[in-house]
Amino acid sequence: MNTQLQPDAVAWRDLTPLMNPRSVAIVGASQRTDALPNREPRGNRVIRNLKNFGYPGRIVAINPKYSEVMDCPCYPDIGAIPEPVDCVVLAVPNRHVPDLLESAAAAGTRAAVVFAAGFAETGAEGKARQARLEALSRERGFLICGPNCYGVLNVFGKAPLFASAIPSGFLAGPVALVSQSGGLSTTIANALMLNRRVGLSHIVSCGNQSGATFEEYFNYFVENENTRVIAAFVEGFKQPEKLLAVARKAAEHDKPLIILKGGRSEVSKRAAATHSGSLAGSAEVVDAAFRQGGIVSVRSLNELIDAVSVFSCETFVKRYNGGRRIGVLSGSGGECTLVSDAAANVGIEVPELTATTKSQLQESVADFGNMNNPLDGTGAMYDDDKIFPRLLQALIDDANIDVVTINLEANDPRPKELKSSNRFSAAIEKAAASSPKPIVCFSSVVGGPVDPEILLPLRQAGVPLMEGAECATATIRNLADYHAFKKTGKTEPVSTATPTPPAKLPSGILPAQAAFHLIEQFGIPLVLTVLTQSTDEAVAAAESMGFPVALKIESSEITHKSDVGGVALKLSNASEVREAHARMSSEVSQRAPNAKIDGVVVQRMARDGVEMILGVKRDPLFGPVVLCGIGGILVELLKDVAVGIPPLTCDQARDTLKRLRGFAILEGVRGKPPADIDALCDAMVGVSRLAIELGDQLVGLDINPMIVLPKGQGVVAVDALVEIK
Amino acid sequence: MNTQLQPDAVAWRDLTPLMNPRSVAIVGASQRTDALPNREPRGNRVIRNLKNFGYPGRIVAINPKYSEVMDCPCYPDIGAIPEPVDCVVLAVPNRHVPDLLESAAAAGTRAAVVFAAGFAETGAEGKARQARLEALSRERGFLICGPNCYGVLNVFGKAPLFASAIPSGFLAGPVALVSQSGGLSTTIANALMLNRRVGLSHIVSCGNQSGATFEEYFNYFVENENTRVIAAFVEGFKQPEKLLAVARKAAEHDKPLIILKGGRSEVSKRAAATHSGSLAGSAEVVDAAFRQGGIVSVRSLNELIDAVSVFSCETFVKRYNGGRRIGVLSGSGGECTLVSDAAANVGIEVPELTATTKSQLQESVADFGNMNNPLDGTGAMYDDDKIFPRLLQALIDDANIDVVTINLEANDPRPKELKSSNRFSAAIEKAAASSPKPIVCFSSVVGGPVDPEILLPLRQAGVPLMEGAECATATIRNLADYHAFKKTGKTEPVSTATPTPPAKLPSGILPAQAAFHLIEQFGIPLVLTVLTQSTDEAVAAAESMGFPVALKIESSEITHKSDVGGVALKLSNASEVREAHARMSSEVSQRAPNAKIDGVVVQRMARDGVEMILGVKRDPLFGPVVLCGIGGILVELLKDVAVGIPPLTCDQARDTLKRLRGFAILEGVRGKPPADIDALCDAMVGVSRLAIELGDQLVGLDINPMIVLPKGQGVVAVDALVEIK
Repeated sequence: MNTQLQPDAVAWRDLTPLMNPRSVAIVGASQRTDALPNREPRGNRVIRNLKNFGYPGRIVAINPKYSEVMDCPCYPDIGAIPEPVDCVVLAVPNRHVPDLLESAAAAGTRAAVVFAAGFAETGAEGKARQARLEALSRERGFLICGPNCYGVLNVFGKAPLFASAIPSGFLAGPVALVSQSGGLSTTIANALMLNRRVGLSHIVSCGNQSGATFEEYFNYFVENENTRVIAAFVEGFKQPEKLLAVARKAAEHDKPLIILKGGRSEVSKRAAATHSGSLAGSAEVVDAAFRQGGIVSVRSLNELIDAVSVFSCETFVKRYNGGRRIGVLSGSGGECTLVSDAAANVGIEVPELTATTKSQLQESVADFGNMNNPLDGTGAMYDDDKIFPRLLQALIDDANIDVVTINLEANDPRPKELKSSNRFSAAIEKAAASSPKPIVCFSSVVGGPVDPEILLPLRQAGVPLMEGAECATATIRNLADYHAFKKTGKTEPVSTATPTPPAKLPSGILPAQAAFHLIEQFGIPLVLTVLTQSTDEAVAAAESMGFPVALKIESSEITHKSDVGGVALKLSNASEVREAHARMSSEVSQRAPNAKIDGVVVQRMARDGVEMILGVKRDPLFGPVVLCGIGGILVELLKDVAVGIPPLTCDQARDTLKRLRGFAILEGVRGKPPADIDALCDAMVGVSRLAIELGDQLVGLDINPMIVLPKGQGVVAVDALVEIK
Repeated sequence: MNTQLQPDAVAWRDLTPLMNPRSVAIVGASQRTDALPNREPRGNRVIRNLKNFGYPGRIVAINPKYSEVMDCPCYPDIGAIPEPVDCVVLAVPNRHVPDLLESAAAAGTRAAVVFAAGFAETGAEGKARQARLEALSRERGFLICGPNCYGVLNVFGKAPLFASAIPSGFLAGPVALVSQSGGLSTTIANALMLNRRVGLSHIVSCGNQSGATFEEYFNYFVENENTRVIAAFVEGFKQPEKLLAVARKAAEHDKPLIILKGGRSEVSKRAAATHSGSLAGSAEVVDAAFRQGGIVSVRSLNELIDAVSVFSCETFVKRYNGGRRIGVLSGSGGECTLVSDAAANVGIEVPELTATTKSQLQESVADFGNMNNPLDGTGAMYDDDKIFPRLLQALIDDANIDVVTINLEANDPRPKELKSSNRFSAAIEKAAASSPKPIVCFSSVVGGPVDPEILLPLRQAGVPLMEGAECATATIRNLADYHAFKKTGKTEPVSTATPTPPAKLPSGILPAQAAFHLIEQFGIPLVLTVLTQSTDEAVAAAESMGFPVALKIESSEITHKSDVGGVALKLSNASEVREAHARMSSEVSQRAPNAKIDGVVVQRMARDGVEMILGVKRDPLFGPVVLCGIGGILVELLKDVAVGIPPLTCDQARDTLKRLRGFAILEGVRGKPPADIDALCDAMVGVSRLAIELGDQLVGLDINPMIVLPKGQGVVAVDALVEIK
C-alpha cells in the first residue's frame, strides 16, 4: 500500500510526448506582432524559440484568422490538424484553457504546456479550472506542464516549448533544471551558464504541477541519457509519496538530485500558496525526507548554483574520495581566517598539514613564517611565480587533505592589467592535469563579472569555481553528505516484513488497553500493566508484579488523568496501594462525575532511564511522520524533536536521533550510564511500521513517556495515546 | 581604573601625522624598475600612487645610491632629510625595520607605514622585532601602521601611502574601511566601488597593529569630517578596553561602525594568529561586546558590503523609521517565497498589507489573483508598464510597511535586449523622489556584473542595491538593531556608584565565608549560612534558622565537597542534622584524611526557584566577562550561557538574559510562576561591578547555584567559588 516500501513498484508515466515531442501545435500565435521582443505574443515567441533552436519536428499554429503564422501552417482549431500532434502549447488566457485541453485530448494529443496564470494559486474559480486539468491528467493520462509556468526547454532535443526569450549562446550540458517559478528558472539557468559555464540539458518551469509533477520530471531525468545532475527549486510537492522512491532511483543511477526548497517559514508558505497553489509542508519533515532520500538540500540560490557547478564537474567528482578535510591555499591571510570560520560553521575540517609537508615547504619555499593549513601564500606568492605551484602541489600531495581549495579572485572587478588571477589559473590548470585529488577554486566576495578566460579553461581542467567561502564550504559538506549517503543509504534494504495488519479500529481515542495492545503488536515493549476492577484486584496485581507500582484510572472519557486525581505513582506496598485506590475512587467520582470508568490500571513503575516521547503525527504533505524527543524542557521549550519518514530502517532511526541537540543525554552524561539506543531505534522502526500499516486511519500516536533503560536493558512504553480517524 | 566606566576619560592619540601627513619619506624606492606593474619595487609603487592621486605634500625618497627617484629628491638616510617629514614609508625587508624606525623617530618623524611581513605573526625572531616597534609606539608615541600591511590611503587628503596599485576611477565617498588583511582591504574596496557605487574616504590595511590599533583608527574616523560610516575586517583587537568607548562615541556621532570579525572558530583563530599575530578572543564574548557597543556585526564579506552600501546611503537612512516590517515587490513568485524564508531566518517581518491597500490594488490593477505581501507582480508586470508603478506606490503608501524592498535583477547576466530591469529602475527613481519611506532593491542571485546604468541613478535617488535575499534581509535587521541601539543603548547612563573597593585579597581559592562576604558586598543576597564547629552548634544554628537545612563541610582544601561525602541536603529536623553531621565527619576524615577542616556550614535550604549559575571568567582579549545560565542540561549540554561585558547596566543584563535559549523558563513554564528576573539582573550588575573593582586580581567567580525565586521574592546565592590571582 505504501509505495515507498517497494520503490520499484512505483508506476511512472512516460513524459516523452511533453519533454521530447515529435510535433507541436501553438495556440496563441498571431500575424500581429509588436517590435519589442518582450511584447510579442507568447505564442509567436514559442515559434521563434523553436525555429532559433532548430526544432526538428513539425510545428503548426492554431488561429482561426490565418492559414499560416511565421511560415508555419495554421489551422482554425486543434481538431482540424490533419495528423494529431504530440504536444499542444497554450499561450492563451486562462478561461480558454480547460476546453482547449479537452478538445486536444479528444483529437489524440497526449501532452500540453499551459502558460496562463489564474488557476489553483487564485480564488475558487481558478481552483475549479485547475481541477478540470487535474482530472484530464489523472483520468486520461494527459500530460500537462503548468499552468502558471514558462514551459519546457529540451536542449538536446532542440525543443523549447518555452514562453521566455532564450538568449543566443545557450550552453548545452548535463544539468536538468526544474523550477516551480518561471522567473527563477531563467535566473538560475543564466547564472549557471554565464557565471559558472555550466551547461543545461533541460529547463522546466513546472508552475502548478496540474499534470506532470516534480516527482515525474525527476524520474524522466533519471532515465534521460543527456542528464547527469538534476537541480530544482521547489515550493511544494504534489506526489510526495513518490519522492523518496525517485530519490533512491536517482542515487542508484548516480545522478545527484539537488533541491532548493522554498516555503520553510509561515509567511513564505502563504507566498507559495498564492504563487503556485502549493502546500509547502513542515520544514522539519521536508528536511527529514531529503536526508532519507539522499537529496542534496541547499538553502539559497547561490548554494544551489555552486552545488550544481561542482556536482556537474565530472573530473572533480571522480577524484573525490568522500572526505571532509579541505586544504586551503590563498594569497590573503584574512581569507584564510574567514574560510576557516565558514568551514567550522558547516562541519568541514581544515586539518593541520603533515609534518612531511611542512618540512618540505620550509625547504622549497623561501622566507615564510608559518606553513600550515590554511596555507597563506602572502604577498610573496604574487612576487615570485615559482611559489604558488609549489604551495599547490604541497596541498595535493598532503595525506591529510581530501579536497584542495584555492582562493582565486576570478571575479576581481579590477581593471585587467591589475589582476593577478590569470597567472595563478594557468598554474592550477597544469597541476590539475595530473592531480589525483579534486581541486576547486573559490572567490572571497560573491559578485561581479567572472572572468571567462579563467573560468572556462579551469572548468575544462576539472576545476569548478565557486563564489564565497560560505557557499564553497557548504558545497563541499553537501558533496560529502551525498557521498556518505551513496555508500550506505541507497543500498540499505528497506524492511518489508510486516505483522498481520490490524483490523479496522474504532474511531476516536483508543482505550488504553487497545492502544497498548496495538503498539505491542509492533514490537514495542510495555511496562507491566494490568486492568483491575476492585481494590483487592489492584493489590493482588501489584503484589504479583512487584513494587513499586503506579495506579491510573482507566476511562476513555478522561484524557488528562492527573487533572482529576486519576494517577498515583511510586506506591511501595499493599497498604499504599489500598489507600491510593480509595483516594482515587473518591476524587475521580467528585471531579469527573459523569465519566464512564472502566477500572484501574496497575503498572509496575519503570526503572530509571531517559524519559522520551515517541509518536506519529500527520504532515499535510508527507502524511504520517515519526517524532522522537527527550521529555522535559528539550521537547517542550526547545522543540528538540527528531523527525523520520516511514518506513524507517534502524540506521535511519539512529541518524535521526543523532540530530537531537540533547543526544548526548542518551549516550550518558553527568555520571549516568549510556541508554539502550539500539532498543530505542527498534521501537522507532516499530512505530514507523505501525504508521504505514494503519495508513490513513491513524490520526496520531503518542507514547509518553517511553523510558529508555540503560544499554542492554531495552525500552518500556509507560503510556500510549492513539487516535483513529 | 576601568576606562569603560567613563568613556570620555579615554585618552586618544592624534593620528594625523599618519593619516594625513604633510610630508612623506619613502624607503625602498629605486631607479631600477621592472616592466610589469606587479613587479615594480613597492617603494616606487607608493610614489606612483602618491603622484597619480595628486598628493599635495612633500615627497622624498631614501636610498644611498641616488640623488633622485621618480623626480623626487633622494637622501642617503632618514637623518639626512633637511626638514623632518611627518611620516616615513618603509618598503624594505623586515630585518631593517626596527633600526630605521628608531632613526626616523630620532630625526623627528612622528609616524610610519611598515609593509614587511615577518613580525608577531611568525616565530620568536619576528615577535622580538615587533616588540621593538611596540615599544616605540608605547614609549615615544610613535604612530605605526603595520607591519605586515598595505598601509594607509586617505582619499580626500590625497595621501595614498599604499603598497597596492590603485585603479583609476577610484570613487571618493563617506566610507572609511580598516582591514587587518591587505588583500581583503582592496577586495572589499573594489566590490564597494564597482559593484555598489559606494565611495571611500580612507582605506587602512592595519596588519599587526604594532603601533596604531583598530580602536585608534575608529576614533580618528569618528572625528574625521569626510567619514560617515566606518567598516572593518578584524581578526583581533589590541586595545579591547577602548573598543566600547569608541563604539559609544561613534554612536553619539551617528557614525555606524560595521565590523566583520574573523577568527570565530578554533582553526580560524590559529589562522589569525599566523596571519596577523592576533588573539581572536572567544566568539561569544566578541558578540556580547559588539551588542553592548551598538557595533553592527556582520558575518560574511557580502553582508559587510551590503551593510556598508545601505548604511552609507544618506537618503535611505534618513527616511528609515527603525521598523522591522518590509514590503516586497517582485515579478517572481519564487523569489517572494525565498525572501520570506530569508526574512523569517533573521527576524524581519513580512506583514500582510492593510485592507485598504488590498482593495485599492484590486481596483487599480487588472486581473491579479492575490494582492498580498510579498507582492507578486507576475508576468503582467512585464507586459504592462502601468502595473509596476502602481504596485510600488501601494507598498510605499501602506501603513503596515516600514521598508519597501524591490526584487530587481540589476545583475541579470542576460544580453541587454532581453533585460527588463531598466524599465523598472526608471519607475523606482521616480517613486523614490517623493517617497517618505526608504526603498531598497535586491537581486535574487548574488553575482554577475551589476549594470551601472541601473545602479548609479538608483543610488543617487537614495535607493541602494543589495544582492541576494539573505544579505538584504540580514542588512535590514542590522539596520533595525542599530536604530534600536541608538534609541536606548548609547544614552543609557553607565553605573558609576561603586562600593568601597575590597582590600587586596589572598591568592588562591577564597574560603567560603570570605567568598560569601565578598559577593554580599556587591549586593548579592545569600542563603542564610552559619559556620559551626560542633554537632551541637550545628543543631542550634539549624533550629534558629528553621528547617529544612543543608550541611556542607568547610575546607579550602576540598573543592568537590560532595565527592568526599561533605554535603547533606534537605535535613528536616534536629535528629537528621545530628545523624548527618556524624556521618559527614567520619566519611570526610576517611576520604580526605589530610584536608584541613574549618568546620561545617549550616545553610537554610533555599525555597523552590530556578537554579542558575552566575559567574565571571577571564577572556584572553576582553578580560573579565559575566556569564549567566540556567543550571542542568541547558548549561552543561547545550552550553546555553549568556555573556556580558562589565560594566553592565540593568537593561544590558536583561538583554543578555533574553538571549538564553531557555529564557522562557525564567518567565514561567509548565505551571511554574515567573521568576524574579529584576532581582537576577541586579545580581548580574553587582557581579559586573565586582569584576571591575577587583580588576586583575580576580581569576574567576562562580555562584552555583544561584536560586531565582518567584517574582518579587529576589534571588539567593547558595554557593560561591572565588579565585584570586
